[in-house]
Parts: sequence; C-alpha cells; structure tokens
Amino acid sequence: MRTQYCGHLNKSLAGQTVELCGWVNRRRDLGGLIFIDMRDREGIVQVVVDPDMKDVFEVANHLRNEFCIRLTGEVRVRPESQVNKDMATGEVEVLASGLEIINRSDVLPLDFNQKNTEEQRLKYRYLDLRRPEMSDRIKLRAKASSFVRRFLDDNAFLDIETPVLTKATPEGARDYLVPSRVHKGSFYALPQSPQLFKQLLMMSGFDRYYQIVKCFRDEDLRADRQPEFTQIDIETSFMSAEQVRDVTERMITEMWQELLNVDLGTFPIMPFEEAMRRFGSDKPDLRNPLELVDVADLVKDVDFKVFSGPANDEKGRVAVIRVPGGASLSRKQIDEYGKYVGIYGAKGLAWMKVNDREAGFDGVQSPVAKFLSEDVVAGILDRTQAQTGDIILFGADKKRIVDEAMGALRLKLGTDLELTDTSAWAPLWVVDFPMFEEDDEGNLHAMHHPFTSPLGVSPEELKASPATTNSNAYDMVINGYEVGGGSVRIHNAEMQSAVFDLLGIEADEQKLKFGFLLDALKFGTPPHAGLAFGLDRLVMLLCGTENIRDVIAFPKTTAASCLLTDAPSLANPAALEELAVTVSVAKKEEANQE
Amino acid sequence: MRTQYCGHLNKSLAGQTVELCGWVNRRRDLGGLIFIDMRDREGIVQVVVDPDMKDVFEVANHLRNEFCIRLTGEVRVRPESQVNKDMATGEVEVLASGLEIINRSDVLPLDFNQKNTEEQRLKYRYLDLRRPEMSDRIKLRAKASSFVRRFLDDNAFLDIETPVLTKATPEGARDYLVPSRVHKGSFYALPQSPQLFKQLLMMSGFDRYYQIVKCFRDEDLRADRQPEFTQIDIETSFMSAEQVRDVTERMITEMWQELLNVDLGTFPIMPFEEAMRRFGSDKPDLRNPLELVDVADLVKDVDFKVFSGPANDEKGRVAVIRVPGGASLSRKQIDEYGKYVGIYGAKGLAWMKVNDREAGFDGVQSPVAKFLSEDVVAGILDRTQAQTGDIILFGADKKRIVDEAMGALRLKLGTDLELTDTSAWAPLWVVDFPMFEEDDEGNLHAMHHPFTSPLGVSPEELKASPATTNSNAYDMVINGYEVGGGSVRIHNAEMQSAVFDLLGIEADEQKLKFGFLLDALKFGTPPHAGLAFGLDRLVMLLCGTENIRDVIAFPKTTAASCLLTDAPSLANPAALEELAVTVSVAKKEEANQE
Repeated sequence: MRTQYCGHLNKSLAGQTVELCGWVNRRRDLGGLIFIDMRDREGIVQVVVDPDMKDVFEVANHLRNEFCIRLTGEVRVRPESQVNKDMATGEVEVLASGLEIINRSDVLPLDFNQKNTEEQRLKYRYLDLRRPEMSDRIKLRAKASSFVRRFLDDNAFLDIETPVLTKATPEGARDYLVPSRVHKGSFYALPQSPQLFKQLLMMSGFDRYYQIVKCFRDEDLRADRQPEFTQIDIETSFMSAEQVRDVTERMITEMWQELLNVDLGTFPIMPFEEAMRRFGSDKPDLRNPLELVDVADLVKDVDFKVFSGPANDEKGRVAVIRVPGGASLSRKQIDEYGKYVGIYGAKGLAWMKVNDREAGFDGVQSPVAKFLSEDVVAGILDRTQAQTGDIILFGADKKRIVDEAMGALRLKLGTDLELTDTSAWAPLWVVDFPMFEEDDEGNLHAMHHPFTSPLGVSPEELKASPATTNSNAYDMVINGYEVGGGSVRIHNAEMQSAVFDLLGIEADEQKLKFGFLLDALKFGTPPHAGLAFGLDRLVMLLCGTENIRDVIAFPKTTAASCLLTDAPSLANPAALEELAVTVSVAKKEEANQE
Repeated sequence: MRTQYCGHLNKSLAGQTVELCGWVNRRRDLGGLIFIDMRDREGIVQVVVDPDMKDVFEVANHLRNEFCIRLTGEVRVRPESQVNKDMATGEVEVLASGLEIINRSDVLPLDFNQKNTEEQRLKYRYLDLRRPEMSDRIKLRAKASSFVRRFLDDNAFLDIETPVLTKATPEGARDYLVPSRVHKGSFYALPQSPQLFKQLLMMSGFDRYYQIVKCFRDEDLRADRQPEFTQIDIETSFMSAEQVRDVTERMITEMWQELLNVDLGTFPIMPFEEAMRRFGSDKPDLRNPLELVDVADLVKDVDFKVFSGPANDEKGRVAVIRVPGGASLSRKQIDEYGKYVGIYGAKGLAWMKVNDREAGFDGVQSPVAKFLSEDVVAGILDRTQAQTGDIILFGADKKRIVDEAMGALRLKLGTDLELTDTSAWAPLWVVDFPMFEEDDEGNLHAMHHPFTSPLGVSPEELKASPATTNSNAYDMVINGYEVGGGSVRIHNAEMQSAVFDLLGIEADEQKLKFGFLLDALKFGTPPHAGLAFGLDRLVMLLCGTENIRDVIAFPKTTAASCLLTDAPSLANPAALEELAVTVSVAKKEEANQE
C-alpha cells in the first residue's frame, strides 16, 4: 500500500509522487494550509494540504493525532528558509494529492509530549512503542541480533535449538516450574541457561554452536533484571580460552563498529585479584579514574582499632580512595557518603582532607588524624600521590565489606563528581577467578558454575587446595556491566566428580541430577569452552539506557507482572485439576498480595 | 587446535601438512599399516599410520572407536585404484606424523552399524547425533533458519522478541501453565503462538515483524507433533493477503532453491471448497493423482439407502475414487482398506471393479451393482473416466466422515500402489476457508483463530450469515503437510466484538481475556496480516524424513518425556511450597503412571 517509508524521503525523490502509510503525529493549521507530521517506523515527514485540493483538505480537516492514514503526494524540496535541520526529512515535504483515513483513534491515554509514569507506559505498551525513541531501541536490538547471527554464521557456528521444557538444574537461582499433565506430580523446569545441552552438543561433535535464546530465573528482580532474559549462547570444541575470547571480542568490537561507529580497541585482560584490589569489583568501570589503594601495612600498628583491627586480620582490608579535588566536599556531603557505604555494611567513612600537601601532617584535616602518626599520614599521602585539594576516604573492615562498600562508593563518587567519562567506552576481560567461594560455614560454592574447569591442576591437586585454585573462566565487562561470561569446561568425568565432591553434592545426588552428564563424559568428550552474553545488557549499552525494560518490547515489572496483558492471572480450575495441582493459598491472602 | 575439518580435505591440499581434531570412526589393521577413519562434523577422512613412525604407530595401536584424537599429517592423493567414490574425501588420505589421544571412550551403548531402538537413541542422544545422517539434519536445520533470517532481514522485517511467560489465551489447545511465586495462586501460560503480541507490534507501527520462536501446546502427541515446536512467525501492516503470500512464497521457493537446488515453481491457489471436494482434505498432497469424484446426483434415487440416504442429506456426501489398475486388488486387500476407512468412522467400503469398460454395466464386478441401474453405473463410469482394470471405491456418509475417510484412503492408496510421485514437490496455497465450523450442537468455532478477518463483509453481514462467510485466511501446503498458515487480521473493534459474540464469548469474558486487544483496536490500528510457518515441518520436508524427532536436537517422546535428562521429574518440595502449589496425586498413583 506504500511506495516509500516517511522517514526515507529526501531530495533525490523531488518531483516524484509517493504513497505513504502511517500515523498522524501532529496536525497544525497555519495560514489556511494544513500541515501534518506523518509518522511511520522509519521516521516523520511533513505533509502539506492545500485548500485547493478540496476533497483532500476536507479529509485532512477531520484528522486527529494517531489516526492511521494513507496518503498520496508529490515530494518537493523546501525553500532554504523552511528547512528543518532537526528532522531527518527536513529538506523536503509532501504536497498531498490523496488522503484516506484507514482507522480513527481515540485520544491516547499517554501523552507523547510529556513524561508518563512507567506504569502507564507498560499498560499501553503498544502506544509507548510508537514513540520514535522507543521504536529506535527495538530496531537497534533487531540490528544487534542480526549482526551477531551473521557474524557467527560466517565463523562456522551452527545455530542449534535446545529445549525450553527441561529438567531442573541447580545454577544458583530458582527455576520456573511447569507441571506435567502426562506425568502427574512431575515438573519441567524452564532453563536458566542451555549449559548442559550445549556441552552435550560438543560431545556430539558439533564443534561450534550458538543460539540466541530465552533463559529464565525466578529471582527477586532489580532494575536490570527480568524473569525472562535473552542470552547469546556460544560453545566451541578444540579451542583455548584465548581463542574463545578472541573470536567473541572480535564479534563485540565489530558490532560496536557497525552499529555505533565506535572503535572499542583491544580489550585489556585483568586478573580477578587485580580488579578486586584496584576497584573493589569484578566488573570494574574503567571510565572512572578512582582506585582503591591498600594501606593496611601502613596502619597496622596505629592505636586506632578501626584501622589496626582489619589491618592485622587476614580476612580484613584497609583501603583508601583519593578523590582529586574532593577537599571541597562539605561535611554534609561526606556524611551522606558515610550513609551510602553503610548500605554495604561499612560502619563509617573516615576521611582526610589534604588542605596543603606541602605541609604534610600539618596540612591535613581529619577526625582520625589524631590517631595516626606523622609517618603514617606521610605514607598514605605518598602512596596515594595526594595533592592539595584532594580528599582521602578510608574503608577498613572485612575484605568483602571493604570491597563492596568502597567499590560502590567509587562508582558513586565518579558519577556525582563527574569524574567518570560517560562518553567513553571501557571494555575489559576479567580472568583468573577463584574456583570456589567459601561461605561463613566454610562450605564451598562454585564461583561460576560447577562445570567450569580449574586452571592448571589435576583432580588431586584441586582436592588438596580448592580455596586457592583458580578457574579457567573469563568475564567480558563493558563500562562496569558484566556483558558476558564463560569458561573452559571440565571434559573428564574424574575432574567433574571431584568438583561435585568439593561442592558437597553426594554420589547419589550426582547420579540423580547429573548422571547423564557423567555418563556422557565417558565417550570421548572433546575439550570445550564457551561463553554467554546477555543480549538485553548489550543492547542497553548500545542504546545508552540504564533501564532494561527500555530494550524489551514487552517487559515485566519488578514484580514480574505484565501490566499490558495482566499476566500472571488465575488459572482455569479445570486445567489445574487436569494437572493434579492445587493452589494452597487462600483467595483472601492472594487478594492481599496484589 | 586444527587447521582443517576432516570433511573438507581434497586434492588441492596434496602435500600440505594439516592438523585435525575429531573422533575415531573406525580403525582397521591391514598389511602392517593402521587405517583410521577419522570423523568430525564436516565428514570423514582416511588416515594411514605407517609402522616406521614408531611413536605414532604405538598410539594408534591403542585407539578404539570414538576416542577423541588430535592428528597431524600430510595430505596425499590416493592412487587411482584406491579412490573411494562413496566418500567425499575419497580421493585423498592423510599420512599421520603426529597423534595424540585427547579423550578415551568406553564402548558405546549404541551401535552405529545397526538400527538402534528410538528409546536408546533418545537416551544417548548426544551419541546418536554423532551419526552423520543425524548431524547433517541438524546442520540443514541451522542453514534453514539462517536462510530465513537473512531473507526476512533483507526484506525489511524486524526480528522482535515476544514474551514466553504470558497470559493464557484460548487457541484450541491446552496451555502449559507456570505458577508464579510473587503472585501466589496465579499462573503464567507458555505461548501457543505470539499471535496477540505480533498484532500489538503492528499497532505500534513496526510494520514488518518476524521471529523464529518456540511455541507450546500441551496436547496428546502424534508422530509429527512436539510439546514445544518452533514457529517462523511473520506479521505485516498495510499489505494484502496476496502480498503476504507473495513474499512468503518467495522465501520458501528461494530456500528450496538454495538448500536443495529444487525449483518449486509458482504455487497454485486452491479454494478450501475445491480442496475438500477433490481431495477430502484442506492440505492435499498433489503428488498423488487420485481424486474424489462426487456422484450424489447419480445415486440419489437408487434403491440402496447406504447411497441414497447421504445423497439426499444436505450434510451428506457420496464420492468415489477411481484407482487406475486397482481391479487387481484382492478381496483381502479391499477388506483391509475397508477396515482402514473404519478408523475415520466410515461404515464400510463399497467397490466396483471395471473388468471391461467397453461392456459397460456387464463389465463391472461389484457387490453393490445389483442396487444400481445400468444408467447409474454408466454415469459413474463416465464421470470417473474409468478404464478397464480400474477399481472404483465408494464413500457415502455425513460429509465430514466421507471427507476424512476418503481423504485418508486416497493417501494410503497413493503410497501402497506407488501412485504418489515421492520424488516430486507439490506446493500450493489453500484459501477461502469458512470463517467458522459448526459443531453438532450448532455452536460456532473459529476455523483459524478468533482474530482472523472475514472476507468482504461488514460486522452486520457477518452476524447475519456467519456459517456461509469465508475468512481471509490462507495455508501453505507442501506434499500434504500444512507448513504455514495465516490470515488478514481484524483491525477494528466492532468486527472483533462481532466475532467474539458469534463464538459465544460474553462481554465480561471478552473484557477479562481480551480487554487489552479491544482497547488497542481503538487507537488507529493499521490493517495487518501475517503468517506462521512450522520450522520443524519445513525441515522435515527438506530432510526427507517423516519423523519430527529427527530434526530436533533434543526432542521429547510422544509421552512428552526427555529420555536423556529424565524430564519431567519430581520437584523439590520446598520449591513447591514457595509457589503455594500442592500436588494432588498420590505417590502410588503417580508411580503407576510411569
């Protein structure tokens, strides 16, 4: 029904008659003429209706915003004075010669010219998606998926689908369960990732696999999480960690080049230990120049338990952040930051303003200075390379708390003081993760997942010193977001059993849950390694938004609801009976939850 | 770790040293040499190990089938006499100079050289997928998806993801339900198709949408059905039914051209009425030359109630199939066909052998001839253009039974008597479906789905004569498989309400289930139309298999089980408690079901 998209019209079409289909973005009556801003998915163009075209003018007179119309007209170049440089089609306009109302519209419940609540936007998502800002994001997402597929197709990866109705696996988050009607009392689980299936595909010999696939986690949601999310899932055989990183880094850099015309350069590789030490985080935002500097050795003998305690505790950490120019922070601002680190368990935020660097100890202003000797202060100033006008902020506690609190403080200071270069791109690889995390009871947990290969040890060596063994895992981080993570996998049964043992999964349970995997490892399994990217997060970065819901056509709220369709909803009792499932929550209780 | 795939080696590489990774497909010791057929995903190549290479020979001596190995060697051209024409790499072999066992293998539980039970194959799916026959299918599937995506990308379609956790919709099959933990007592449904979401995307203005997406139906399974299946889902705005058919027909023909080098030609378009009349089916296999021929007018006055009853019943049908050369069928064979049509509700199978066409009435042999006059027999012989040696088979009953029974009989005869040209391709479009089907109680059911637009009527006209109104729907059929179906959708609220009314969905229910759709239709909805292909079926056709499980990497059994991972399985009681869900089937009862 159309010859062109509105958004594609330009001077080269001048004089041509075009047919357009789209929506009335705005109508204005001016100097006896009617001007229509007509919109379709590719953009907006100005249409002029002359009263001489009587029939057309009559129809145009009845147009309201968001009417769906079909228009015929001649493209003409606007006079220099009327060129609209804010519009992609601003050099031309269309002189209407035919106009038909395809469908009328009530007044929209959303006003495109002002900010609507997110609740309204989600309820009328199909209208919110008409806004060019939103439709551009969805279009960029389509381009991103398409780019990824072409890249991986061209690199001999095979797109292979894995099941959605699967067996529950313990990967750290809750499964969504699906009751089976045929096997009453049994359940499928929706996959948290196709991890085991992609490993099985390597055992089948497929060699290079990918899939852009929905995954599911029934977790309490944060702003950047959704109950269903999309993963670019990749697995390879006979490739080293370096080779997997190379090909996937190339995919991301070429993607940024093609979609944003941005050169990400070569990604630095940083060991986990260094990332935690310098940034208090395993996904450091390198656009932010602030760093954590360890000073435990300097303060371990001071007569101030807040510092000397953690400094002498092997699980403690004392680290400072020097904030250039931060001496101008007010007492109130510093107190706010003190409260902020409190969220992460820090008990306070000691500070030291450097009012005169040349004056050394006498030039600093700090509530804690009195506990510190001149040498200690001089040591801290030297090590942080402090300058007049800076402030030094202290974190002293258990290592975990210092890492989290000072890591978060670093980010907040970077934003608040505009130290972080938000126009920059800072990708990196984080590698050499510990194989396990130990909880307070001394139980080991897999840092990635239990199929991750340890780095350079035999099963016996792993068992002898699990806490100090690193895994052959790697995360890709961009601007402080973990956009992808992966590892070399275990490819022999003995090592896999050793890891299960260390994780406290008993032989019976191993057999019940992973019997098929342990079986499969017996039949000539190739060495294999892979990686999974979060597509939603990549697109968030590409779009420059921090709200994951902005890059998903039909997202759910943080309460995992769809406000548009009103899902989840009550089920048909007959359906539940067929599934042999009963809801054990009282109607009233449920009403209260809404 | 490799320089080439085994399957890619050829004469052009003669003299070069290559590195290969893969599996021992077979080992033979011959004339003091060891021959290894080495396999990877691209194929098999012959490796020769000379005892002069002592270390390599020693390793080769330990090789067993399915060991995973890494091999270095020189490609050399085989002497003419030793060329293996059955092997893609049969002109060359590799002389081993290095060999490493990457991983050993136990003896496989499957024997690749003989037929394994499907149960065994599904339990050890990762091994079954090593068979070139199977891996070729999965590779062809990947090529098919990739082709579809490129075609649609190139035609300005946008790949947009729709939710998997959705609201239940009544589309004729049972939903899989997912209990919500946050909203206890409420359920998500897994989508039977993204129908409403793709319509909403058209309302958003995206214009041309596609998605290759998993859909779910909790139905009792047949050989060509799976609980989760993959749909190529397409929707467009401002395009007519013809335009949608054109672009999708082009997609399929180009796909067949590229993947099979087959020219499907231009697809004929056949009205539903003609398909039912000539073939008793709305998805006729046109490779089969047999047709149903109506003879009700000829037999309506005969003194044989079996014929005259249906012939005079407006819901009845009397139709015959003439089978060329069928007079040679034995009495026993005919009885078998009689039983076969019984499955579809037919009460018997009357027949008439044409032993001598020239002799007319006297030349036929039939148990029912005595009930028919000479004129009637002559009429039937003329109309069917019967020839000496043919048999004519009769169906007389309610129209629905004759259609189903004779339609199925037609297919069976085509196969049994090798009348169907299995080397041919027979695509077509079936169009002009009735809008509704009427059940025995006179209730109307949507023939496609309730969002399908009627053809050329107003809401008032539709309400006045729903039973005789056609819909603007179309199915693509290839070789008797419905590979895709779609329609022009309703794009105004009044028509949508009229259809819901006719389907007996009351106002309250309309609002509860489809309120958001009826709302959305108020805001300038564009005319839109779409189509969905079953990817699994398309790939079945491309691969020439009739078993849908052959084209799915990890399929489920007809009991909806995964024999590999043993899903579904019992859920963790704590997880069920969190979901406020109780299983109301006793353990014992459940055990009995297994």
